[in-house]
Amino acid sequence: MGPARLFPLLAALAALASAQRRSSISDRANLQYLFDRPVEPLYFAKGENEDVTFKLPPSYVPRRYQNKATELSNRFAGGTTIEVPAINVPDISLPMQLGRREHFSMFIPYHRRMARRLVEIFMGMRTYEDFMSAGIFCRERINPFLFSYAMSVAVLHRNDTRGVQLPLFAGRFPEKFFDGAIFSRAREETNLVNPGERIPLEIPLDWTGTDLDPEHRVAYFREDVGINLNHWAWHLVYPFDGPRNIVAKDRRGEIFYYFHQQIIARYNFERFSNRLGRVQRLLNWREPIEGGYFSKLDSLVASRVWPPRHAGARPSDINREDMQLNFDLADLERWRDRIYEAIHSGRLQRENGEFVRLDEVSGIDLLGNIMEASPPLSVNLNLYGDFHNLAHVALGLMHDPDHRHLETFSVVAEPTTAMRDPLFYRLHSFVDDVFHEHKRTLAPYTVQQVASAQVQTQGLGRANELNTFWQVSDIDLSRGLDFAPRGPVFVRVTHLQHAPFSYRVQVRNSGAARTGTVRIFLAPRFDERGTPLTFREQRLLFIEMDKFQFNFQPGANTIERLSTASAVSVPYERTFRDTSVMPAQAGSPAQEQFNYCGCGWPQHMLVPRGSQEGLAADLFVMVSNYADDRVNPPPQPNSCSQGHSYCGIFNQPYPDRRPMGYPFDRNPRTNAQTLAQFLTPNMLVTPVTIRFFDEIRAPGNSTGIPVRRGRVTTK
Amino acid sequence: MGPARLFPLLAALAALASAQRRSSISDRANLQYLFDRPVEPLYFAKGENEDVTFKLPPSYVPRRYQNKATELSNRFAGGTTIEVPAINVPDISLPMQLGRREHFSMFIPYHRRMARRLVEIFMGMRTYEDFMSAGIFCRERINPFLFSYAMSVAVLHRNDTRGVQLPLFAGRFPEKFFDGAIFSRAREETNLVNPGERIPLEIPLDWTGTDLDPEHRVAYFREDVGINLNHWAWHLVYPFDGPRNIVAKDRRGEIFYYFHQQIIARYNFERFSNRLGRVQRLLNWREPIEGGYFSKLDSLVASRVWPPRHAGARPSDINREDMQLNFDLADLERWRDRIYEAIHSGRLQRENGEFVRLDEVSGIDLLGNIMEASPPLSVNLNLYGDFHNLAHVALGLMHDPDHRHLETFSVVAEPTTAMRDPLFYRLHSFVDDVFHEHKRTLAPYTVQQVASAQVQTQGLGRANELNTFWQVSDIDLSRGLDFAPRGPVFVRVTHLQHAPFSYRVQVRNSGAARTGTVRIFLAPRFDERGTPLTFREQRLLFIEMDKFQFNFQPGANTIERLSTASAVSVPYERTFRDTSVMPAQAGSPAQEQFNYCGCGWPQHMLVPRGSQEGLAADLFVMVSNYADDRVNPPPQPNSCSQGHSYCGIFNQPYPDRRPMGYPFDRNPRTNAQTLAQFLTPNMLVTPVTIRFFDEIRAPGNSTGIPVRRGRVTTK
Repeated sequence: MGPARLFPLLAALAALASAQRRSSISDRANLQYLFDRPVEPLYFAKGENEDVTFKLPPSYVPRRYQNKATELSNRFAGGTTIEVPAINVPDISLPMQLGRREHFSMFIPYHRRMARRLVEIFMGMRTYEDFMSAGIFCRERINPFLFSYAMSVAVLHRNDTRGVQLPLFAGRFPEKFFDGAIFSRAREETNLVNPGERIPLEIPLDWTGTDLDPEHRVAYFREDVGINLNHWAWHLVYPFDGPRNIVAKDRRGEIFYYFHQQIIARYNFERFSNRLGRVQRLLNWREPIEGGYFSKLDSLVASRVWPPRHAGARPSDINREDMQLNFDLADLERWRDRIYEAIHSGRLQRENGEFVRLDEVSGIDLLGNIMEASPPLSVNLNLYGDFHNLAHVALGLMHDPDHRHLETFSVVAEPTTAMRDPLFYRLHSFVDDVFHEHKRTLAPYTVQQVASAQVQTQGLGRANELNTFWQVSDIDLSRGLDFAPRGPVFVRVTHLQHAPFSYRVQVRNSGAARTGTVRIFLAPRFDERGTPLTFREQRLLFIEMDKFQFNFQPGANTIERLSTASAVSVPYERTFRDTSVMPAQAGSPAQEQFNYCGCGWPQHMLVPRGSQEGLAADLFVMVSNYADDRVNPPPQPNSCSQGHSYCGIFNQPYPDRRPMGYPFDRNPRTNAQTLAQFLTPNMLVTPVTIRFFDEIRAPGNSTGIPVRRGRVTTK
Repeated sequence: MGPARLFPLLAALAALASAQRRSSISDRANLQYLFDRPVEPLYFAKGENEDVTFKLPPSYVPRRYQNKATELSNRFAGGTTIEVPAINVPDISLPMQLGRREHFSMFIPYHRRMARRLVEIFMGMRTYEDFMSAGIFCRERINPFLFSYAMSVAVLHRNDTRGVQLPLFAGRFPEKFFDGAIFSRAREETNLVNPGERIPLEIPLDWTGTDLDPEHRVAYFREDVGINLNHWAWHLVYPFDGPRNIVAKDRRGEIFYYFHQQIIARYNFERFSNRLGRVQRLLNWREPIEGGYFSKLDSLVASRVWPPRHAGARPSDINREDMQLNFDLADLERWRDRIYEAIHSGRLQRENGEFVRLDEVSGIDLLGNIMEASPPLSVNLNLYGDFHNLAHVALGLMHDPDHRHLETFSVVAEPTTAMRDPLFYRLHSFVDDVFHEHKRTLAPYTVQQVASAQVQTQGLGRANELNTFWQVSDIDLSRGLDFAPRGPVFVRVTHLQHAPFSYRVQVRNSGAARTGTVRIFLAPRFDERGTPLTFREQRLLFIEMDKFQFNFQPGANTIERLSTASAVSVPYERTFRDTSVMPAQAGSPAQEQFNYCGCGWPQHMLVPRGSQEGLAADLFVMVSNYADDRVNPPPQPNSCSQGHSYCGIFNQPYPDRRPMGYPFDRNPRTNAQTLAQFLTPNMLVTPVTIRFFDEIRAPGNSTGIPVRRGRVTTK
């Protein structure tokens, strides 16, 4: 007797069950269901117990399914019903041009126009109830990726959804994060095993390749769930296109530069940890690209898998009518050359012919916005074009530049998945170098610009040694499994982790009591050959570890700072737990601690891997005078302020007046050839060792017995 | 209230329902369930109404699922229960080495060894009940592709399953036949719409590419469901490896040559119909291969999608530890050169050093078996190697020859999917040419070898005009959708079709009453430039249309022959209907007509497409003396004998003593430069035109109003 034949029976039984409960769409707790199981219609029973039903106005349900919608609403009459009021939804014909099962990418101008329209609609709804109703109307019609993007941007930016935490993105769209091999296993598991008894579906560490491909050695970084989630969240917080009030955030061009600069620095640090040289900039668009990348991502919502990038692929001019997109490699080259010309002449040209100086205050911000490029913020879109976005698209279409094969783009052309492909780093290493070309034109910081202090550092465990290892963590992906039986089903991933540690900094304050900013950076000490890095090279490799204010008393001060408090990172739970908090449920202490926004470097990737024999690194600590760093008025820390170094504080000025990356963002004084020569009295460098233990430890076990020795390889 | 929470309730209700029925595994009708939903365990409810349950011995159920198996057996106590007796199953550790979710290909020697072992086990079971029980035991453990292959070979070859018709392969493994884009739509459809109301999921004609890729113009041929099903069935009937009594079929090496020769001839005919030149032989293994192929096939059972073949890919030496497979391109080249050497010296060398002559009777058969290569039948596997199979594997691993990317092979390396890739035809065009190199060494047929007759031909509709068009047909793929709600869900494909026609042949028999063999072939008249084909070229392009016996009376005879009776084809229903007939259900007239075996060219692809302006072709009819054609004893036609020209008659001698392809398999007499000069009094050529109507017609509508004009392209 199949479920289909049970429906009348169930309806009768349900009538005997507990009385029907009602809930309102005003209740913020119900917002989560719009992010649940992207393809399942909203009139399909929701919630862990399938006891929540949305009652949609008939006009909201596509005609073919209207009977089904009525049948389902009646079926679960014993549960909670949420009445959805009908409103007049603005015209959504533009965003409906993207097929329900197609891929979506903000890098593609056509998709971007659709997203902008949808964001405008969602932002424009006057009441929360209208917003919900419009969202529900659109959810049944719009491409799920596009819907999720626009809805997420709106939830993040609307005043009436302040503090609402979105359900974990990786759990909702597992096809963008996890080995496609697990989806059929997940379907088997949910159908054969009851929720409490299911075992996690294990993805081995080396699931996309082997070390026969040298680039695979750093796959654990490129494919890390947290790093990719962070990249997704960053682009939600800093959309480069959309309504101007959402896009025009404080120093967003500069933070585009700094966030990606730090990604490259961190990537190179991982490469040194794995005996690989620094990533090579992508300079020549006219020659084949060595090596390939097979993402192993499959499709669930989308009808097409991400095509792999094969070895020896060659960029081409793009002629894709399906994306309303034509451009030539020569366009990219022209835009690149004009940006260089602007840097070397020290000024940008506006559309009206006026010039804007690339000065040391706002130059980098202007450059960031023309490079990315942001249509509302670029000073001249015609002249400087759309380099970064279309470079991603060109690299993602090498296999099918004219659509003869009806293929979609590869992972590098979508922000959520781009960081998986080694090519991302070759492109961004080039982009980064362009920014540095500008930075190199600025006057070096003079000694006078920094205050006086002394510091000392000590690690936990062995003094000045940081320890890294592998860890397994589980993520529930049931929200992404349309039509599968309810209840969690976990995927188990292996990722890098480090033992928690703390900085202990001793500072002698020779003046009066005052506040200082403590800046902590880390860089490798030797290059890929084992030769000490010169300062000109090393400064580009410094990764920010933390930044905080401290009230210094006269005389000796001791600072103790935990690694988990880092200003660049968000906690472990942010990556691996579904931390969605809807205000109606919020308030318990357990939930409060998860109540922060999504942007920030994942805590488990704070420390580069290092090596088994111990990788030599320089820990740099600097104290600067807070009076010179402070922005006015100072931003208020809020529940979203963790991870502010790479992400800023949501909708507030960036909390540090210094150029991002300070003091390493410029060429040093001419007499500073080495890091030691660069140091002023308010700086100190301590040699540290990063030691990697090649074993898998369970969460919470950072020092003890491994779960398993050695790396797990796929069969 | 979810299904999980309903189970106890259901059990109680079921107890009130109709009394439990029992069925036995001896009932051949129950065999079909082993081919149903490849990943669902057998203890999961089966049948359209989910009312059939297998009761497995505890030792048959993997430990983790034993509770579930008991729960499910009890749940549907109101249906039919089939008790499975426990037997001691032979050791299956070798075939269990293939992971449950991996791809399987007979071209790979390691996989082949596993398959051979499993076939031996299934063939070796003494009773039908033991065979079923062993099959059930293995089904829960073995890779579903491998299981299906071995089980199908066994069902085809065991005496106690004679006449059992396997469920339609394309419906059971849709991932090998249909656009991967429909699987998520199929899941949506089965979950949202009740069985009777579901609409077919349409796959447009041009779903894998566009005509920007010239090779795409003949994609409708390469990707045709029937053609690929036929290729799969041919390889089931003619396994090249396995127990000797299954492999050593009458003239199997020769039929390998002839089946593939006809595929190439038919492909070239389609290419001419689409203004493409003949397919180029793959001669050089050392240079990149132009053009790419993106199959758009996705995974359901397998955990990995088929990787695409990108433009400019290059064959490499193969070093794949995961397949226990190492060989070099130089190996392929050596084997190829030795086969050529054998042909040019007219003899093969056995392992003991003796020579075997390549004569006109068995030479081609010996060559077919060393070329393919068949381990039990090759005269010297060490010397002549494994050219054809490993050539397929090498071409299927160009993207990952050393497994650095952990990728599986592409479609060209698996018999079920190989014909989709243009490269298949380049490889087989080369293989075919090697066979012809041998045929060219044989003496031309002399005029004396043929009897005397005259023929005339007339088409239906306009005289001597064949009409082709597009047609849509539906295929139920619900057997392939593990864990989806029950009931059929159809995929709608667009394929080539022709108006039924008949041959009308008038023969004057100047002698006494006697039986003759009528042979009908068709070839294009002009080459790719529009120049008349010479006979040396045209003879390679003749496709067989029909072959039958006729009892000629003295004087005038008129033969009427329907196109649907063709000896090369199997009926339309064989491709598009699930024609599985289990003997316990068989017997009704409606089912009898579907009761034939699977091998044979699909009827809907019997006539090449032709062109809108009309493609000129030569219809060739020949009558030969049956006394010279007959094999002794003559094979008995059985329910599997349709399509015998390309497939033989199952387990009987090939029903024509002449060399396959006669009279076009050899060079002509020196004085026959044109087809006209080649003709002897028992042959006639009639010019025909193949006119293509570029419109889609519904099944059964071969002349009338189209469903839709023009080709449907994907968005």
